[in-house]
Amino acid sequence: MKNIKINEKDFSQQILNQLKLICPEKKFYALHEPNFVGKEWEYVKECIDTKWVSSAGKFVDEFEKKIAQFTGVKYAIATSSGTAALHVALLLAGIKPNDEVLTPTLTFVATTNAIKYCNAIPHFVDSDYQTLGVNPKKLERYLKEITIIKNNECINKKTNRRIKALIVMHTFGHAVNLTEIVKIAKKYKIDLIEDAAEALGTYYKNKHVGNWGKLSILSFNGNKLLTTGGGGMILTNNKTLAKKAKFITTTAKKSHPYLFNHSEIGFNYRLPNINAALGVAQMEYITQTLEKKRQLAQKYIEIFQDLKGLKTFNEPKYCKSNYWLNVLLLDEPNIKLRNQILEKTNSNNIMTRPVWTLMHKLPIFKDCPKMNLNIAENISKRLINMPSSTFL
Amino acid sequence: MKNIKINEKDFSQQILNQLKLICPEKKFYALHEPNFVGKEWEYVKECIDTKWVSSAGKFVDEFEKKIAQFTGVKYAIATSSGTAALHVALLLAGIKPNDEVLTPTLTFVATTNAIKYCNAIPHFVDSDYQTLGVNPKKLERYLKEITIIKNNECINKKTNRRIKALIVMHTFGHAVNLTEIVKIAKKYKIDLIEDAAEALGTYYKNKHVGNWGKLSILSFNGNKLLTTGGGGMILTNNKTLAKKAKFITTTAKKSHPYLFNHSEIGFNYRLPNINAALGVAQMEYITQTLEKKRQLAQKYIEIFQDLKGLKTFNEPKYCKSNYWLNVLLLDEPNIKLRNQILEKTNSNNIMTRPVWTLMHKLPIFKDCPKMNLNIAENISKRLINMPSSTFL
Repeated sequence: MKNIKINEKDFSQQILNQLKLICPEKKFYALHEPNFVGKEWEYVKECIDTKWVSSAGKFVDEFEKKIAQFTGVKYAIATSSGTAALHVALLLAGIKPNDEVLTPTLTFVATTNAIKYCNAIPHFVDSDYQTLGVNPKKLERYLKEITIIKNNECINKKTNRRIKALIVMHTFGHAVNLTEIVKIAKKYKIDLIEDAAEALGTYYKNKHVGNWGKLSILSFNGNKLLTTGGGGMILTNNKTLAKKAKFITTTAKKSHPYLFNHSEIGFNYRLPNINAALGVAQMEYITQTLEKKRQLAQKYIEIFQDLKGLKTFNEPKYCKSNYWLNVLLLDEPNIKLRNQILEKTNSNNIMTRPVWTLMHKLPIFKDCPKMNLNIAENISKRLINMPSSTFL
Repeated sequence: MKNIKINEKDFSQQILNQLKLICPEKKFYALHEPNFVGKEWEYVKECIDTKWVSSAGKFVDEFEKKIAQFTGVKYAIATSSGTAALHVALLLAGIKPNDEVLTPTLTFVATTNAIKYCNAIPHFVDSDYQTLGVNPKKLERYLKEITIIKNNECINKKTNRRIKALIVMHTFGHAVNLTEIVKIAKKYKIDLIEDAAEALGTYYKNKHVGNWGKLSILSFNGNKLLTTGGGGMILTNNKTLAKKAKFITTTAKKSHPYLFNHSEIGFNYRLPNINAALGVAQMEYITQTLEKKRQLAQKYIEIFQDLKGLKTFNEPKYCKSNYWLNVLLLDEPNIKLRNQILEKTNSNNIMTRPVWTLMHKLPIFKDCPKMNLNIAENISKRLINMPSSTFL
């Protein structure tokens, strides 16, 4: 035991040494910091000068247009956060109270919370070693076992509830196996929603993610590849859903020069113009940003390739990843070792992080239905995120 | 009839003529435009230069501190919108699904929507000619009639549901009769929530509004007296509630250097630092802003004092109003005349607006319980809002 302990400590030091090749200075390195190198100030200043800082304004329209063009999804609707985008995407997918929504246990809590906002029930599914996202093989076996199709709807035989949708999350910018996922969703009459919060600039089979789901979402939170301070986007190729998305994110007010009529329960999920201005500026150099991200990922691959006991996680087959957060995976599950590495690096001003606590492990979601989740559990004991800012 | 028609048209023209004294140019006058005359640029630029644009950052803390100091409420928690602030205030007041929440029918839809977000039931109450807000006399008579106190809770005898809270809204910046309202809330074991979305800078008996409710909220939407693009604030004098408010508006994540544990369903309702920076700048000259608002209200009083058939609405007894939106009231309910005035002014580039469609008139809320609402209905047929920007 003693020997192992010492080895492990050496191991943490070795990892720290390698990380210092990328984070050489004494300052604090966050996991992902913004890097404004375009016309951010010019556009934000224009908002202040013209007084158009709020929810209407040209930068909101322009940001939506740029995102739609870039992703190739026909319609993009800006929101105040990725969480807000998810909430509305679920509502537009027709999620009703007491519906079940399949969702990865390995995700950030926003995905699961958004399901709860709809008074629906998260139903946790397992991950794939190849993608870190939803595991299509396990999902299909599971659905075959627990569901039955009735009146063109997928019913959970155990709970007798409808399984209305499946959310897949492109973890750290790596796309799930969309070809397989789409097949399963179709076969089981389940709507697909892509949580691409972390995946702006990620392509699957040469097409940007967000194009496979009935609805998809992006996030522009402060730690994302592109940030608007706080913000998100709903993506869809369906015109009716797009119109509805704009409508209910802006209080569901019917258009009229002075009358205030609201035809359904709406939300104030608008992205302010001043935040959109930041987004527009960053979209003007998104290609360079993505190029830098790939270069950094390559550096990580190189500096860790000779270290035994772990490996970097690289983009899966068919996926061109944005490498939002770089990933180290220990060869074997070992929470103690993982935590030693986390302590060692964080106490040396280099921020690293384990994957989020798995959703089914949070007491608030402990009663939610779930499949066997051993792969996600395995991954969670091995994974470490590393600093991934574009200036590195 | 014909004579009346011609008179009414003359009347609209007379009003337009008077409005032109305040809005003399050919340009479009919105109801309320921001007016940035402080260090907005400097502070926003600091956010961009330091890369602190997102949800953590010194301007969020500073904005919260400045609002707390200014209002005299001990704790202020910034949010992404006034609607978000209301939603969380209701949750913190302990609103549970199927509870009833008393709320004015004369309000913006956000107040009512926030109740629905909690799966609770809006219960509409009438207005007061003196304040445009909740009518304490009618409320008390009504509660006496329909409720019973059981186990220290107020139960609606008709529906058998708990009436858990009362929201009052300080309409257009005019405070409700808080002394009476507080008495009623106490007597009937109902929590009071002040929707002060429109009332930053409004005082009741020399104390800023927001100090009477268990929780209160402000809005910094683009049309407000102070704007952060989009934003809001939860106010409370209760430390426990304040801590909880910060916690659940920031995804309910327990503090830890790298672990992500969430102990309840939280929200991403953070106000980004870049938006807070705008707010901090405006708080530095809030006193001058309020002075200008009072001067403009005085102008409106003067230019309309000799016109028969209507009057300006002025601050009620004990209230020093921020005069967020100036109000004209026709002497008699007359929707046709009201609409003629709206059409005449709006078609002449001077934006005017009737009060929002009363909540109980919206089909989405038609089944909600309500008292007799004849005063709100009377007011809604008489009221017109006028341009109220501080540069006028």
